[in-house]
Amino acid sequence: MGIAVTILGCHSATPRINAFPTSQYLAINNRHFLIDCGEGTQRQMRKYKVGFSKIDHIFISHLHGDHFYGLVGLLATFGILNREKELHIYGPKGIKEVTLLQLKISQSHAKYKMTFHELSSNKSELIFEDDKVTVRTIPLDHRVYTNGYLFTEKENAKKLHMDNIRNYKEIDKADYLNIKAGKDIVLSTGEMVSNSELTIPPTKPLSFAFCSDTSYKPEIVPIIKNADILYHEATFLADREDLAKKTKHSTTKQAATIAKHANVNQLILGHYSGRYKDLNLFKKEAQEIFKNTELAEPGKTFTIL
Amino acid sequence: MGIAVTILGCHSATPRINAFPTSQYLAINNRHFLIDCGEGTQRQMRKYKVGFSKIDHIFISHLHGDHFYGLVGLLATFGILNREKELHIYGPKGIKEVTLLQLKISQSHAKYKMTFHELSSNKSELIFEDDKVTVRTIPLDHRVYTNGYLFTEKENAKKLHMDNIRNYKEIDKADYLNIKAGKDIVLSTGEMVSNSELTIPPTKPLSFAFCSDTSYKPEIVPIIKNADILYHEATFLADREDLAKKTKHSTTKQAATIAKHANVNQLILGHYSGRYKDLNLFKKEAQEIFKNTELAEPGKTFTIL
Repeated sequence: MGIAVTILGCHSATPRINAFPTSQYLAINNRHFLIDCGEGTQRQMRKYKVGFSKIDHIFISHLHGDHFYGLVGLLATFGILNREKELHIYGPKGIKEVTLLQLKISQSHAKYKMTFHELSSNKSELIFEDDKVTVRTIPLDHRVYTNGYLFTEKENAKKLHMDNIRNYKEIDKADYLNIKAGKDIVLSTGEMVSNSELTIPPTKPLSFAFCSDTSYKPEIVPIIKNADILYHEATFLADREDLAKKTKHSTTKQAATIAKHANVNQLILGHYSGRYKDLNLFKKEAQEIFKNTELAEPGKTFTIL
Repeated sequence: MGIAVTILGCHSATPRINAFPTSQYLAINNRHFLIDCGEGTQRQMRKYKVGFSKIDHIFISHLHGDHFYGLVGLLATFGILNREKELHIYGPKGIKEVTLLQLKISQSHAKYKMTFHELSSNKSELIFEDDKVTVRTIPLDHRVYTNGYLFTEKENAKKLHMDNIRNYKEIDKADYLNIKAGKDIVLSTGEMVSNSELTIPPTKPLSFAFCSDTSYKPEIVPIIKNADILYHEATFLADREDLAKKTKHSTTKQAATIAKHANVNQLILGHYSGRYKDLNLFKKEAQEIFKNTELAEPGKTFTIL
């Protein structure tokens, strides 16, 4: 259980000395995902000790270079490291052709299977599900086809309340499955012990919403409602709303407004334009609308347990 | 005049925290070239203050990822920076298709013209020439089609020996072109002044040979004969000659042997395998065969004036 998002890169457009393009490593309910993969991501993974072998699923929001030019290098490195496990890659239609051509021309012969899940729908859809986590797309509005991703824990099972169970000597291990399944227990005396006394309710499933590059888009609010952490790009400060609109990006205040309306717990900002030196202004402006705002920075991990 | 080679990256295979794949910036006779472009090259260019606008020619040795996965990001960044000057890219056949597909899919609309010069010959050929510099291929032997590049200054013009010229009052500016062209001057007294007295001979044209990934290949010796600086990969120490042969790379001693037979002035080693911690062993081994050996390291510049 729990969420930990590690920022690998959080700047826009071009890699600079200490400004790496978008990539995040998400651990959620013991599942491990890589989200976006700008140039230099594999170096950042090594720097922040993200185990390469943990990653079985990579989600790419869109095919602008600052979100996916690092993908082919990472896939080639997996090959060099003799990876054998299947890897799933989710991203816009076209990602398969360009990635396979690059790997082919560089004669990167990987032993492992790559499965591409190409996306083209403009509606939110379930694209991944196992017993621990679901992943849904968050259709965004950018200059190219773009999705954010909503990662949600599956409802966890009830836990046995062992201290209370021990009060009833005749309840034994044979009853545990029934108790976990929500059943009440009738003792030999005829007394009924309520299931709620014998169990600890499951913790609320946590969720993380990743919204990469997008115009201000209030239509996403119902999809990300009550998310525990929302990463939302804020390329510009509020005074450049004109430029945000033109380039289909968001401002600090637009990101904060989305966070407020969606009633999330925490907002993380990122994808700062290279024109800004003092990033604290981003936090300050957003906090005027949404108090619990933090700034993405490489190596920082945001955790909810 | 002069050569300055700045190492941007010099490690093999996969980018690591402080190990960047191959790329070099070469200034020769006031021309500026980028040679190979592994992932992260544009960041290294910024770090070591290589002006993006200086680069009009990029030479790629081969299409393994550690030598060209950084190219598309750099080209896209040139576009973002509103480059308008034509850019020439030299590399193996196939480089155009993969690069243009990547730029197309990421909708990187560059205003500048890109001209690809695709190479497929196995013989050394002249691929660039202007009034300052020539560039020839050095066919290498690697697992994929690979060229090194030999950069050579053009013969410089004679310079006027002004101190000596001033001894002859009747020699004036009108004679300078003739003197530069090598003519003797006959004075009104009938005395002939030899051209060698009036001029300073041109400095010897300098040359830099870049040999990226290759098996030990003595056939390149005549091509790189007497080069002032030879960069030659040495992926392995001498005790792993078997592995060098298998992967079509070179050892320290093989690189040094090439340097010795080619009678170069200085040898630079690089492309070290990630298995080695102490790179000084590379220098020590090579120096047993070729004394003037140095190690490539990021940010280091090798200069001959």
